[in-house]
Amino acid sequence: VSWRTTRISGQQPGTNQQVAVVDLGSNSWRLVVFTYGAGPWWKLTDELYETVRIGAGLASTGRLSDEAMRRGQETLQVFARFCRANRIEPRDVHVVATSAIRDAANGEAFLDQAQRETGLQIEVLDARAEAFFGYVAAVNTTTLDDGVVLDIGGGSMQLTAVRDRRSGPTVSFPLGAVRVTEELLAGDGPAKRKQLARVRSRVEESLEQVDWLAMSGSRLVGIGGAVRNLAAAAQHVDGGVDLGVQGYVITPATLDGLVETLAELPSAERGSVPGIKPGRGDIILASAVVLQTVVAAGGFDGIEATEAGLREGVFLARTLLAESDPLIADVRAAAVRNLAIQYESDLVHVEHVALLSEQMFDSLVSCGLFLPMPGERELLWAAAMLHDVGMAISYDDHHKHSRYLIESAELPGFDPRERALIAQITRYHRKGVPKLGELATVTHADDEALLDRCAVILRLAEHLERGRDQSVSEARLHTNGDGVDLHLKAGGDLTLPRWSVERYGDDEAFERVFHRRLLID
Amino acid sequence: VSWRTTRISGQQPGTNQQVAVVDLGSNSWRLVVFTYGAGPWWKLTDELYETVRIGAGLASTGRLSDEAMRRGQETLQVFARFCRANRIEPRDVHVVATSAIRDAANGEAFLDQAQRETGLQIEVLDARAEAFFGYVAAVNTTTLDDGVVLDIGGGSMQLTAVRDRRSGPTVSFPLGAVRVTEELLAGDGPAKRKQLARVRSRVEESLEQVDWLAMSGSRLVGIGGAVRNLAAAAQHVDGGVDLGVQGYVITPATLDGLVETLAELPSAERGSVPGIKPGRGDIILASAVVLQTVVAAGGFDGIEATEAGLREGVFLARTLLAESDPLIADVRAAAVRNLAIQYESDLVHVEHVALLSEQMFDSLVSCGLFLPMPGERELLWAAAMLHDVGMAISYDDHHKHSRYLIESAELPGFDPRERALIAQITRYHRKGVPKLGELATVTHADDEALLDRCAVILRLAEHLERGRDQSVSEARLHTNGDGVDLHLKAGGDLTLPRWSVERYGDDEAFERVFHRRLLID
Repeated sequence: VSWRTTRISGQQPGTNQQVAVVDLGSNSWRLVVFTYGAGPWWKLTDELYETVRIGAGLASTGRLSDEAMRRGQETLQVFARFCRANRIEPRDVHVVATSAIRDAANGEAFLDQAQRETGLQIEVLDARAEAFFGYVAAVNTTTLDDGVVLDIGGGSMQLTAVRDRRSGPTVSFPLGAVRVTEELLAGDGPAKRKQLARVRSRVEESLEQVDWLAMSGSRLVGIGGAVRNLAAAAQHVDGGVDLGVQGYVITPATLDGLVETLAELPSAERGSVPGIKPGRGDIILASAVVLQTVVAAGGFDGIEATEAGLREGVFLARTLLAESDPLIADVRAAAVRNLAIQYESDLVHVEHVALLSEQMFDSLVSCGLFLPMPGERELLWAAAMLHDVGMAISYDDHHKHSRYLIESAELPGFDPRERALIAQITRYHRKGVPKLGELATVTHADDEALLDRCAVILRLAEHLERGRDQSVSEARLHTNGDGVDLHLKAGGDLTLPRWSVERYGDDEAFERVFHRRLLID
Repeated sequence: VSWRTTRISGQQPGTNQQVAVVDLGSNSWRLVVFTYGAGPWWKLTDELYETVRIGAGLASTGRLSDEAMRRGQETLQVFARFCRANRIEPRDVHVVATSAIRDAANGEAFLDQAQRETGLQIEVLDARAEAFFGYVAAVNTTTLDDGVVLDIGGGSMQLTAVRDRRSGPTVSFPLGAVRVTEELLAGDGPAKRKQLARVRSRVEESLEQVDWLAMSGSRLVGIGGAVRNLAAAAQHVDGGVDLGVQGYVITPATLDGLVETLAELPSAERGSVPGIKPGRGDIILASAVVLQTVVAAGGFDGIEATEAGLREGVFLARTLLAESDPLIADVRAAAVRNLAIQYESDLVHVEHVALLSEQMFDSLVSCGLFLPMPGERELLWAAAMLHDVGMAISYDDHHKHSRYLIESAELPGFDPRERALIAQITRYHRKGVPKLGELATVTHADDEALLDRCAVILRLAEHLERGRDQSVSEARLHTNGDGVDLHLKAGGDLTLPRWSVERYGDDEAFERVFHRRLLID
């Protein structure tokens, strides 16, 4: 992994750095602050938002309107003031402008004035660069290896082919939500069938030139506010408990249903569909139809949402990673470590708990005591790494706090089911009979058994490492007649681990789950 | 306030210290770790627990039994090992023994052996010292000025008079839960009326010599596990939402009901009463009857529970405060600051938000726009100080996270109603129409109006301080015809605060709550 370690490790330990990324989109403008530090870890720590609609009217005139430019200037003044107030140095402020400003005949003049008046340096991204940062965001916050990244904004839509995590060919079309709404979906009432058909034809015509789309496999990752809103709406329709849209897959069927629901409503009421933000209601139908057409044309299994977008891409490529090769080697591992570091977990301890958990897991599988579900070992590892994050809140009930913190985190690379399971394994790492409860709405049929197994193994590992001193260097479980022997290798004094396992290791739970008695040798 | 600042400020910033306090009680033994640092802040960060029952059998023989001593030695070995594993230096381990070991004929011999085998230094507290540390815990985690502190353990019960927060006369009686159970409440079945009467007489006889009890006012603060368990049980009976027992008052009527419920059950089933821990079930009735008798004899309004006890008292007196004058000047302020520091809030920012909130609150009261409820201004202050704690989790939804963190904190000095209100004010400091929801079960009739007012004021203050740079140095609200003018004094550039208040300050909410339009001058 190509962390820009020189920059990060050059800091004093404990000091964090901040950068601001400002995204002057065709619909909304947003300033976000990322705080990051050695570890590495990073986190979005502040955000300003304004629906500037700089691209309003552009479709008909080819120019930014005076009214839109006035709103833009005012907003930039506020953003510039915010950076000064928060002592974010100009060199740490990355302002990027996309389609509307790029395409407008008077875009350059607007930027000249804006830069003069605010002192901000503004970079106009060409379509290729815009697509690149979207790709960087997508590939570092999902497990996408091969497929397509779709980025839809107010002005344009980019598609980037991904092969073995590297970016392939890219196309950009003027199919953003504001643009399509103004050109093809005008009118306040319900959308007409003809209007929808015209949007579809426009998209299909554009896609005809994209000969690689249909041979890109089944995965399509979507970024941008429209995708996030539609994913939230899909989650409402599908009916699972809300764990955020990170990794949520909008299926073609649900998307078809959403298009129908939205089209039947007058434009002003589309923002009241659960999941859709009111400020986006009047342009969401355009995005939905464009997405629907791309999914059908490419034969994708659906659209996988990620919370990250252009701004995260700029941050990752420009600040945290090397722009020439901006790939986090293991997205899931990085997400888990990022969270553990943010909550100041004792990394040596949690990594050792993870190691002992994996040793016991592997040895149980070897003796044939159970057949793990796909991905089960990695979920156990993640839960072990994160079991103590709740200690940042309080020692009492820290298992419940860990669940809350994991459910509140995006944990990129994991989907809602996986986040639910990781959260719930940590919830039961100390005591209690594991239950999925309402989380069963996002998990699979056999996941309660997975939860049971992982919680019991993690509980044992935690008590073997009760002194946080790695005094148990290795732990294996082997069948022995009706029982299972716990074999320990000592790296130090075993008084405390033995007491802790005997006192709290919960052999009842072990027997309930694995149908064998736990014998401590 | 007499912080031992020399010791604390001698540290490097960012480095925290740990001490372990071990309490060898007559019923349970517990090791707790406190982590503390400059600020000052402190927090319980680890805990080991064993029901040693070192005092079992003492009532009849006057000696610690061989079996109890064996359990004790084993447990001390584990505790000693834990301290070594966690690199807590011997000078930072405070082990104290109370009634059972103090009173047993062979207590000293037991300790000699224990010290030899474990290397731990054990201090036997006399009844006066035991009462003192209980007093220190109580007076620094409640707002008790005048009244009585009651500390009931397994072996003894201490009462300490408190006048103007200083400790007055102290008495100690062998009325601990294990002792009373063994002597007066033997038997597995439901308790007999005669047995209960005998406990009451024994307590009343003891109290006859306490001539200051009845003239100590109406407040009785209780510490120890029995009080916490009974407070949790009382909360179940009283039916409010569970926000922890810190500051919860067990009323005499609820206590009477609990005694009846417990007495009717066989001893083995008392641990299944909601709120009572199973391991304490067989001795809880004794504590309940003793408390009931003390409340009646002193004419107290009830028993106010605190989570702190002997261990916190030892920590506060020996480590954080000066033992000669171990008083935190303002318990509530210290609790609020402790939490804000733990979650790394920007103190300059939150203190300024608190100041602006108070200025707007005071000016609204001055123009007669509302009459505050008692204590309302302090709740607003606390919410302002804590509004950002949720940022430690994530920027998105940080208002919801702040609520969760405040509800999860003990916040000593505040009762459950006050904690609920502080939490809920922060919950609505950004948007939404404030609602109490299920919290209404612990609040007063007019508290939704209080919440409404404070949330709107805090929202304004937060947006005036959006740049976290104190650019608004003063904010006042004055009636002007049908409206209310917002007068600002500038300490810096007002671009950002004005934009933020106009964009997000929510004048609709202001008008809904104060029935006047908000006018920004």
